[in-house]
Amino acid sequence: MSETKGRVTLPSEANFLEKTQEIMERWGADALRDSDGTKLDDEIKSLNAKIYTTYFVARGHNEFAEKHMDECQQIYLMSFHNIAVSEYLEIPFMKGYYEEQVIPDYLHDPKKWWEVIDRTTGEVVPSDEWELDKERHQVAISHAVLFHEYTVSFLAYAIWDPTQMYNHITNQWGDKPHDIPFDVRQTESGRFAREYLIQWLKDNPCTDVVRFTTFFYHFTLVFNNHAKEKYVDWFGYGGTVSVQALQEFEKEYGYALRPEDLVDNGYYNTPFRIPTPAYLDYMDFIQRFVAGKAAELVKIVHEAGKEAMMFLGDNWIGTEPYGKYFGQIGLDAVVGSVGGGVSLRLISDIPHVKYTEGRFLPYFFPDTFYEGNDPVPEAMRNWVTARRAIMRSPVDRIGYGGYLSLACKFPKFVDYIEKVTDEFRYIYDTAKKGKPYCGLKVAVLNSWGAIRSWQPYMVAHELWYKQCYSYMGILEALSGMAVEVVFLSFRDIRENGIPEDVDVLINAGAAGTAFSGGREWEDAKLVSAVRKWVYEGGGFLGVGEPAAFHKGGRFFQLADVLGVDKELGFTLSTDKYFNKAVDEHFITQDRTEPFDFGESMGDVYALSERTEVVEFSDGEVHIAANRYGQGRGVYIAGLPYSLENTRLLMRALYYAAGKESHLKKWFAENPCCEVHAYSEQGKYAVLNNTVEEQSTVVYDGEGTHAEYTIAPGAILWIPGGD
Amino acid sequence: MSETKGRVTLPSEANFLEKTQEIMERWGADALRDSDGTKLDDEIKSLNAKIYTTYFVARGHNEFAEKHMDECQQIYLMSFHNIAVSEYLEIPFMKGYYEEQVIPDYLHDPKKWWEVIDRTTGEVVPSDEWELDKERHQVAISHAVLFHEYTVSFLAYAIWDPTQMYNHITNQWGDKPHDIPFDVRQTESGRFAREYLIQWLKDNPCTDVVRFTTFFYHFTLVFNNHAKEKYVDWFGYGGTVSVQALQEFEKEYGYALRPEDLVDNGYYNTPFRIPTPAYLDYMDFIQRFVAGKAAELVKIVHEAGKEAMMFLGDNWIGTEPYGKYFGQIGLDAVVGSVGGGVSLRLISDIPHVKYTEGRFLPYFFPDTFYEGNDPVPEAMRNWVTARRAIMRSPVDRIGYGGYLSLACKFPKFVDYIEKVTDEFRYIYDTAKKGKPYCGLKVAVLNSWGAIRSWQPYMVAHELWYKQCYSYMGILEALSGMAVEVVFLSFRDIRENGIPEDVDVLINAGAAGTAFSGGREWEDAKLVSAVRKWVYEGGGFLGVGEPAAFHKGGRFFQLADVLGVDKELGFTLSTDKYFNKAVDEHFITQDRTEPFDFGESMGDVYALSERTEVVEFSDGEVHIAANRYGQGRGVYIAGLPYSLENTRLLMRALYYAAGKESHLKKWFAENPCCEVHAYSEQGKYAVLNNTVEEQSTVVYDGEGTHAEYTIAPGAILWIPGGD
Repeated sequence: MSETKGRVTLPSEANFLEKTQEIMERWGADALRDSDGTKLDDEIKSLNAKIYTTYFVARGHNEFAEKHMDECQQIYLMSFHNIAVSEYLEIPFMKGYYEEQVIPDYLHDPKKWWEVIDRTTGEVVPSDEWELDKERHQVAISHAVLFHEYTVSFLAYAIWDPTQMYNHITNQWGDKPHDIPFDVRQTESGRFAREYLIQWLKDNPCTDVVRFTTFFYHFTLVFNNHAKEKYVDWFGYGGTVSVQALQEFEKEYGYALRPEDLVDNGYYNTPFRIPTPAYLDYMDFIQRFVAGKAAELVKIVHEAGKEAMMFLGDNWIGTEPYGKYFGQIGLDAVVGSVGGGVSLRLISDIPHVKYTEGRFLPYFFPDTFYEGNDPVPEAMRNWVTARRAIMRSPVDRIGYGGYLSLACKFPKFVDYIEKVTDEFRYIYDTAKKGKPYCGLKVAVLNSWGAIRSWQPYMVAHELWYKQCYSYMGILEALSGMAVEVVFLSFRDIRENGIPEDVDVLINAGAAGTAFSGGREWEDAKLVSAVRKWVYEGGGFLGVGEPAAFHKGGRFFQLADVLGVDKELGFTLSTDKYFNKAVDEHFITQDRTEPFDFGESMGDVYALSERTEVVEFSDGEVHIAANRYGQGRGVYIAGLPYSLENTRLLMRALYYAAGKESHLKKWFAENPCCEVHAYSEQGKYAVLNNTVEEQSTVVYDGEGTHAEYTIAPGAILWIPGGD
Repeated sequence: MSETKGRVTLPSEANFLEKTQEIMERWGADALRDSDGTKLDDEIKSLNAKIYTTYFVARGHNEFAEKHMDECQQIYLMSFHNIAVSEYLEIPFMKGYYEEQVIPDYLHDPKKWWEVIDRTTGEVVPSDEWELDKERHQVAISHAVLFHEYTVSFLAYAIWDPTQMYNHITNQWGDKPHDIPFDVRQTESGRFAREYLIQWLKDNPCTDVVRFTTFFYHFTLVFNNHAKEKYVDWFGYGGTVSVQALQEFEKEYGYALRPEDLVDNGYYNTPFRIPTPAYLDYMDFIQRFVAGKAAELVKIVHEAGKEAMMFLGDNWIGTEPYGKYFGQIGLDAVVGSVGGGVSLRLISDIPHVKYTEGRFLPYFFPDTFYEGNDPVPEAMRNWVTARRAIMRSPVDRIGYGGYLSLACKFPKFVDYIEKVTDEFRYIYDTAKKGKPYCGLKVAVLNSWGAIRSWQPYMVAHELWYKQCYSYMGILEALSGMAVEVVFLSFRDIRENGIPEDVDVLINAGAAGTAFSGGREWEDAKLVSAVRKWVYEGGGFLGVGEPAAFHKGGRFFQLADVLGVDKELGFTLSTDKYFNKAVDEHFITQDRTEPFDFGESMGDVYALSERTEVVEFSDGEVHIAANRYGQGRGVYIAGLPYSLENTRLLMRALYYAAGKESHLKKWFAENPCCEVHAYSEQGKYAVLNNTVEEQSTVVYDGEGTHAEYTIAPGAILWIPGGD
């Protein structure tokens, strides 16, 4: 039998001892944490539980920061586009920014560190052709070209931590001081960060786990002149910059970065941009610095006999857990929030730590926990969604956030979470002890590869975007599917080829983005490497606009592999005779509901009679398959997450891999159910991934099948599995 | 009162004298023509009517052609893409072609005139690295790069005229000889074409009008190995090529064309492609040749005392009626088929001829004229659709095609056309004598400009394409709208600026096409010229992906003018606060039905609070307006043709022009009706453009209004109008 206690972290708060003890008992919690706006009192800290304490490295120390404003964090910002309607053009470059968050850096010579660009031609305006008015925060160009658009890229100081700022404004904290973020790369700040931590550890003897929230540089989060979010990129390196960093970079790499290398047309190198070599260099440069500095702090924590845990968010930039330098930090644990299978795997797959922890939904906040509302359905939906991923790769701990006192007012919720925590421990026990059955190995291919494992298509962490959900569904489906998932970059293929054991490559995204690959596909070496690999038996699944780069009469550079291409208007003159769907196909065999391709993709057509058109409607191909030598290509127009689409993807993968006959191993016919087999444990689980009862025929590893009925959201554990 | 007779051409046929006379009388016909598959007999030719006789210049003379197969017309063709799975790659370049239509040209050295291209790199394979097997029609490359795709561009002879071929196959003409097209650029063919015409004119004394069908070069129409259409481009210069032409071109221009200049990745320079300088040179070269040679023939016709009429279609390439050299041909007339307002205007606006004639639908063919079917509704729909355009710019004559004997079996149809012909003559009388009221002047802006007046978005003449109808609707709406329409090219703007009297520029199409403009918008001179013109008071209407070229942080290079841009994924990190529709707007004021943007355009967003979002749904902006200096930009996602969208466009144009207060001049409130005012004639017409009764408030030129009810499809003529 599994553990009946442990692996659960509770938020607590002052003056809540008795109820905390009761919930600890019922949920089997063995760790307690403070939370945003709560503190643990001494009585609670003395309970039989590990105590996590939130720790801020580079903010929340204004007594230091105010004395060292020249060591404030910096950021490159771009003005709006300004049209020259006369030769004399004034650009109020701070327009649209919030002066309580960012102020121009006039300490370092703007003529050296700033850039004025004619965006209509792309040319830089020589610095002797513009003047700066520091009083009015304006740049003036005397001889602008009429009706060209100009921008100013300027270096600024960030004087308010954006997370504290968001909380400050949202919670109307009034005259509470603004946390000033300082840059540990600078001499005084670096020293302060170490010394303060040493003292803090002495001052907090009850703390078992220092929960770094987080290290040094916040993801890019800039507010507008109404103090509302203006730009958010959970991956953004905007806040890592400083004159010192740029100088050190130049010294090391032998070339200087331009402001435009970071400003990037105002796109600021979002992960949707295909990264430039300079930006990749810069990321590496920052990661090495962050890993080194963070390792120093972690060492101090360890020397104090405590554990170091990192919150995956806020000031996490440069720590990328799947990056090359993360292991050097020496962390004990990572904790992050879990919204579904993708974010669960993003945490649970992290290497180089002793344990991972997922903070589950719902938060114990009044938006869910208010009188008259039942928080159980939301909790249940979230649990069954994330649970799929736990079956594949469990986090080591689960936890909750918010006000425990609020949650306690909902006894049915407390009951439900009691069951969840027990179920979690049981799954953990089983899944952690041996790898579950994997029918296939798939590799997700984009410009980023491993460093952005489980992170493609994200903008702000876990928010829904119209342009993303049709691709994000692939990852969500994979997060709980009985397949092994790795993330490959185009560079990986160029340098090392495609790993032997991969069954299917997935390339999914919009044309021109880092996820589809854009100009990366201009490289004949990459294109022919993938073709060869498929031809010799590999599978290639393209979703949306895969391998899209217009060249040589093709838009999809792997059109020959996929059997389809997208009409750009240039082949309208060519008759399309092959857009006729086959009567039935393995990929769609148990589809019962209408197809949902999300935002879908228009104008895709079959190239030849060899293309198997699986779904054709509205004059467009939405699913196609194509034999290519010994391998196969499969095309799908879009895959928003649903249980039906998860099944569609699974079938598409098996088909692409040429392993159709292996599908019905550890398999549930009903797409609302999934099977996970743990041969080393001698058992397998049939999940009901819905909140309704489900019946399904279940196949074991030999293909023997039987029918089962499973209660809403339940797991049926069956002996067997080897 | 108007003429009661004339301006109508009838098809007739042998042994149909009496009925022909009766219909001539009832419809007021004053010309008779033969038709595909019919001949006029002597009795009919002696009737009191002009006799049109179809004449083929470059085909239908096999007695000559068979003796001069080396003067056959030629074409450059591209093989399929062929993947190199081993270093030795054989390319069966004729695969997919129909050997009864095209055969490889082995007379001229393939090593000189052909091209083998590595499409994965874009590089030409040196001619000493491939071998040709003429027996098997194969090219072999000995050292192909593995998994690169290769194509062969080869010169071929066209040995069967594609129009005759189509009719031959469709009508199962069996062993009827294939019309061999010969090239009048070659010595013998050129001489034959002249001499045969001279003799023919002597042999056909009853012919009044020589109906050239057409001149020398057929639009590109290539069949596949199943004898089905493989490639069709109504504008294609594919069939104009020959070794002699290429040599003459090189001599004149000082540079040689490559096969790729014509093959163009297999796109063959469709009008959707932004034309290259070389292709524009080539078009000009061909046009000058065609105009010169055609002028010779027309002169011969005139010398025989007859008229020369050109059919706008089939072998029309190089005659472009809106091109620079058309006037030199000296034609008396052009006839073309009319499917709606656009094709009516395409004919009726043709300059340099004495008269134009439109061949109306339905054809007197069994697909419409069969027992149990009533051809009147189709005739009525077609008439009211084309009639809008006649109100603006009438053709001088209307006509019909097919079998008159078939039409006569439908007395209600004969009655209806009697009314149509009377109505036509009345409109003609009014509209021809003075320009109708124009509220605005609009210019349609694309890579082609005037030479493709009324022809944008066409692939095969008048066929519907999913990728086109959302733009074609603009032209159809404009064809009958009380605005003046001109067509401008980007080059026109670069060389001559934007004409002073234009109120609104329209740029509409898919990104990267010649209609949107693609890389043309990389030119800062063009971009700033349009910006300046709008800023100083002009109107700019963008539809679909206007001015789309990704550069400088913009996708729409005129995003500043339009107030919107399209999300490519790179600005997802930027918060979009301005996507909120205004409560009401001039552009959509009398919209009653749901919007129909056709294929529409996804992911368009408002740039700033200054953008007036007129329609926002499904997370996207579909209509927006933006003040820009003294001028305005308007964006619409797509405009398939409908009466409602015609109204939407009209309002958008008036708004863009800043002339909202002028809208209700000669205006019907009901979008199913339209007003056309003829001040010189002292009257105005209120059209009911539907086949149901309509009531509407009508405004005259002073804004005085009154309500009228108009019978289905009727025109209400009202005195006044100045």
